[in-house]
Amino acid sequence: MISQQMIALRNEMKKEDVQAFIIPTSDFHDTETVADYFAARKYFSGFTGSAGVLVVLEEKAALWTDGRYFIQAENELKDSGIDLMKQGQEGVPSIEEYIVSNLTKGQNVGFDGRTISYNDALKYQSAFEYAGLNLKVNLDLVSQVWTNRPEMPHAKTFYYDEKYSGRTISQKLDMVRKEMEKEHAHTYVITKIDEVAWLYNIRACDIENVPLPMSYAMVTMDNAYLYINQSRFDEVSRQKCEEANVTVCDYNQIYEDVLKMNGPVLLDPTSCNSRIAMSLTQTKVLKMSPIILLKAIKNEVELENTKWAHIKDGVAMTKFMYWLKKNVGKMEIDEVSASKKLTSLRAEQENYIEDSFATIPAYKENAAMMHYHAKEGSCAKLTNEGLFLVDSGGHYYEGTTDITRTFVLGEATEEEKYWFTKAMRSHIRLAKANFLYGCHGYNLDILSRGPLWDCDMDYQCGTGHGVGHLSNVHESPNGFRWRIVPERNDACVLEEGMLQSNEPGVYIEGKLGVRHENEYVVVKGNKNFYGQFMHFECLTWVPFDRDGIDASLMTADEIEWFNWYQQECYNKVSFGLNEEEKAWLKEICKPL
Amino acid sequence: MISQQMIALRNEMKKEDVQAFIIPTSDFHDTETVADYFAARKYFSGFTGSAGVLVVLEEKAALWTDGRYFIQAENELKDSGIDLMKQGQEGVPSIEEYIVSNLTKGQNVGFDGRTISYNDALKYQSAFEYAGLNLKVNLDLVSQVWTNRPEMPHAKTFYYDEKYSGRTISQKLDMVRKEMEKEHAHTYVITKIDEVAWLYNIRACDIENVPLPMSYAMVTMDNAYLYINQSRFDEVSRQKCEEANVTVCDYNQIYEDVLKMNGPVLLDPTSCNSRIAMSLTQTKVLKMSPIILLKAIKNEVELENTKWAHIKDGVAMTKFMYWLKKNVGKMEIDEVSASKKLTSLRAEQENYIEDSFATIPAYKENAAMMHYHAKEGSCAKLTNEGLFLVDSGGHYYEGTTDITRTFVLGEATEEEKYWFTKAMRSHIRLAKANFLYGCHGYNLDILSRGPLWDCDMDYQCGTGHGVGHLSNVHESPNGFRWRIVPERNDACVLEEGMLQSNEPGVYIEGKLGVRHENEYVVVKGNKNFYGQFMHFECLTWVPFDRDGIDASLMTADEIEWFNWYQQECYNKVSFGLNEEEKAWLKEICKPL
Repeated sequence: MISQQMIALRNEMKKEDVQAFIIPTSDFHDTETVADYFAARKYFSGFTGSAGVLVVLEEKAALWTDGRYFIQAENELKDSGIDLMKQGQEGVPSIEEYIVSNLTKGQNVGFDGRTISYNDALKYQSAFEYAGLNLKVNLDLVSQVWTNRPEMPHAKTFYYDEKYSGRTISQKLDMVRKEMEKEHAHTYVITKIDEVAWLYNIRACDIENVPLPMSYAMVTMDNAYLYINQSRFDEVSRQKCEEANVTVCDYNQIYEDVLKMNGPVLLDPTSCNSRIAMSLTQTKVLKMSPIILLKAIKNEVELENTKWAHIKDGVAMTKFMYWLKKNVGKMEIDEVSASKKLTSLRAEQENYIEDSFATIPAYKENAAMMHYHAKEGSCAKLTNEGLFLVDSGGHYYEGTTDITRTFVLGEATEEEKYWFTKAMRSHIRLAKANFLYGCHGYNLDILSRGPLWDCDMDYQCGTGHGVGHLSNVHESPNGFRWRIVPERNDACVLEEGMLQSNEPGVYIEGKLGVRHENEYVVVKGNKNFYGQFMHFECLTWVPFDRDGIDASLMTADEIEWFNWYQQECYNKVSFGLNEEEKAWLKEICKPL
Repeated sequence: MISQQMIALRNEMKKEDVQAFIIPTSDFHDTETVADYFAARKYFSGFTGSAGVLVVLEEKAALWTDGRYFIQAENELKDSGIDLMKQGQEGVPSIEEYIVSNLTKGQNVGFDGRTISYNDALKYQSAFEYAGLNLKVNLDLVSQVWTNRPEMPHAKTFYYDEKYSGRTISQKLDMVRKEMEKEHAHTYVITKIDEVAWLYNIRACDIENVPLPMSYAMVTMDNAYLYINQSRFDEVSRQKCEEANVTVCDYNQIYEDVLKMNGPVLLDPTSCNSRIAMSLTQTKVLKMSPIILLKAIKNEVELENTKWAHIKDGVAMTKFMYWLKKNVGKMEIDEVSASKKLTSLRAEQENYIEDSFATIPAYKENAAMMHYHAKEGSCAKLTNEGLFLVDSGGHYYEGTTDITRTFVLGEATEEEKYWFTKAMRSHIRLAKANFLYGCHGYNLDILSRGPLWDCDMDYQCGTGHGVGHLSNVHESPNGFRWRIVPERNDACVLEEGMLQSNEPGVYIEGKLGVRHENEYVVVKGNKNFYGQFMHFECLTWVPFDRDGIDASLMTADEIEWFNWYQQECYNKVSFGLNEEEKAWLKEICKPL
């Protein structure tokens, strides 16, 4: 049955003379997780997955989503009149192909340019113009139809003190203007909330697990602007902005202001929303947003704080490991209750703000699903067997953490040990890497992935990602991936001070999943005739579960690293444990 | 003292009102090795190295070359009035900076556009125009001054039969036109001699070690043209061209013809000479020349032939190894006489044409110099100690080979064994690689280079390169390098049928050099849920010198590969040996 909201939307489309309307899963800032206010695709389609694009025509509609969500989308779209388009499957048309084949020359395609990046809009534009269709890029039909829409996020902001962030606003503006000079830009438009938050040292819990306020910024060689809902803006931040000569304007004011700026205007076409980009008459400098790189290279204050955040996080995780290993099989624990326990242990740590993403607790075969989501009530109960994978992290004032441990419940089988150890070797091979300055993640990825490839297997994700500092837990532009995807800004040179996760895994459908994830910072090693050597310094200090290790499958070097690491965990986190926990930790950290 | 030729050149510059003239080391086809006819930079500067750019001003002159040649250039330029510019050293100006700082606005810079690629010319153009200098891109001052210039190469061509090349001219034109369609090009200009030779199945020994004739080509959707000195063109090739409707024109005719062609015109800006590219008024499609990829993916006939060429080459190399190991210390052998012996053994093989490059025989510390050139008379004498590196290859009708072996003379020291084994492990790690389709060389390079990086060392070159089929021994676009250099067209996906060398090494200044080089072809492995796996099939069959191996430094996997490889060498090449050689080979191929 066609829903009321779809009927209402089609009425609006008719009024605007639009025969196709595109609703992506996005806010105005290209944020990875969207707030409820922006969940328009879910509102109209009924599909609740985290990724998907809805296209509504006059008589039919379709939703594109990826392999993670095929089954869920099939269920949720049943009887909705919306066809499921399985992305990446043979014969499935692209959005452009679908629209072009259903419309006739001279008809109109619309979207809200704020929710679609400039690059995507250009792609649509060229396809539709080629087919003789017109594009209406600034249609906000959603607001007109969605009557009970959730509020726009407006949590109170707070100033992210220099004792954590390490740089004043003025210092950051100086860094930014140097980059603008290099690009010969007079104005720089910043639309991503993590970039604005970094630039002005502001934070706010607008979206669950994402401590960043909805905002825009513009910087010229002489002025700087922050666009934010003023009623939510805190006094300290206001004062700090004033000191740094930052003009604070209303959130929506940017759409007018940008038109008055001097060109050339620097913007990042992969993230800048197309309403802003397409409204410009000035010369555009289309480059990766310079803040992405500045932000990724953590300064010494950020690094010191991050190290402490990881120690606290390590205490919480180690306590969790103790609790889990001691109690499984003796009390009722399921995936969700375990993850709640973990959150409560993190929350006991000083300066904890929130989890850095929704914990992924996945038992046995559930862990083979890389995007498994445990639901209260229906989730798996833990017993004294099998592997239990827990991917989690915390936001602390000192920084953001991300860690995965795979726990052996009861006694591990030979097969479990085999795969557990294989993933461990992958982790260690990358952790120990020594490489010349100039390397990208794609040069190193095979160190981790190679042992899986050697047996014609793979993990279908990156080996690692950059990590924000009280910011997005997934951060560009650094990462460990073997393929380069230019529009993802994810293949930069590994620079000193960058944070990287290292999280290879083994996933065997219907059976088990293993992942071993630590975070590392890129540091300088020796400099000699050959160049500047670089390596990784570990930030995460939680023992790997030795019950999963078959040392006979490891090289001497790997065993040495493993033993060193376990001992360091004891040295670094035992101070935060009680006597019982400490004694247990000492035992499990002893050499293999 | 300023040479007569420099004085004459400056006179010509005056006549043409040119205040700076650029003479690179290049022919009209961007060939790696230039024929004597094109050695203008050497003629004017007196510098004999293989790479360098001479810039002549009214009152001074300078020569740019790289680290390989600093000492040699200093000697050869002494008293010439030409300053040496050491490329890559701090404070050394670029060619553009040097010219801009020495000329004044309105003055003129000239070069012969046939000797400078379109990309380089554009780079010069933008720098000089920015500085208010004018560019004269079609000045052939060299011909006017160089009176006793060697002849233009004009060896008789021969048709490279389909039994070796595997495709008729018409089949190749079909392949090319499909690529032109994809790029929406109506005309395709081909200026590299290896691409023309591939397209029309012609060869000629114009340059030592490079069996390719000086020629150009153009292809349209309906016609095809070959531009070549007609008097040198053989009858079979003429007939084959006629059958395939290829119009054979005079060598220089292309410069007029290209102006009459329909656009868009496809050309490769990294190699197409700027005189052609800049004369075009048609729309240009600037892409990597499609033949580069078509040529790199060897067809089944080329592969079968190549395998046989390697077997023959393996017989010659194995005989050389026997001769060397038996006679060193007993008779007088030096680097040059050893390499002559090797050439004579190759020449005994059926269908041998010539060496595929000048053999590099490097004893002891000479092998640490990656571009060491042994000279008759002054080269090192071999004695019963140390390592002797020999990098060599052959052109046979069946294909081109490239192999390096490092031989232990006498008994290896612990240190020699250590580095010999380290380089061996690097070779094996890459040789055994299993990887998903889509990988580039930069994904795999660390498999070889990693063990060196682990001890803060490096070899300052790629780990491997593509190889031509009776063509250039170094062939784009595939290779094993960790850095991407886009203008080198050298970072493609590894496709089934590509030939790659695998040649990691260890070079310790003043002491020793080790390199272990085999050639491999990329082949398909298993295809499953994760994708298409790929690996390497070995082509080269010459035993590595087991006297250099310390098996205790190798993993069980690596030893297994080594033992398998040595046994296969025996199986494949012993048929070509006499009884004595055969018995010896059996012994040295036994398992570690």
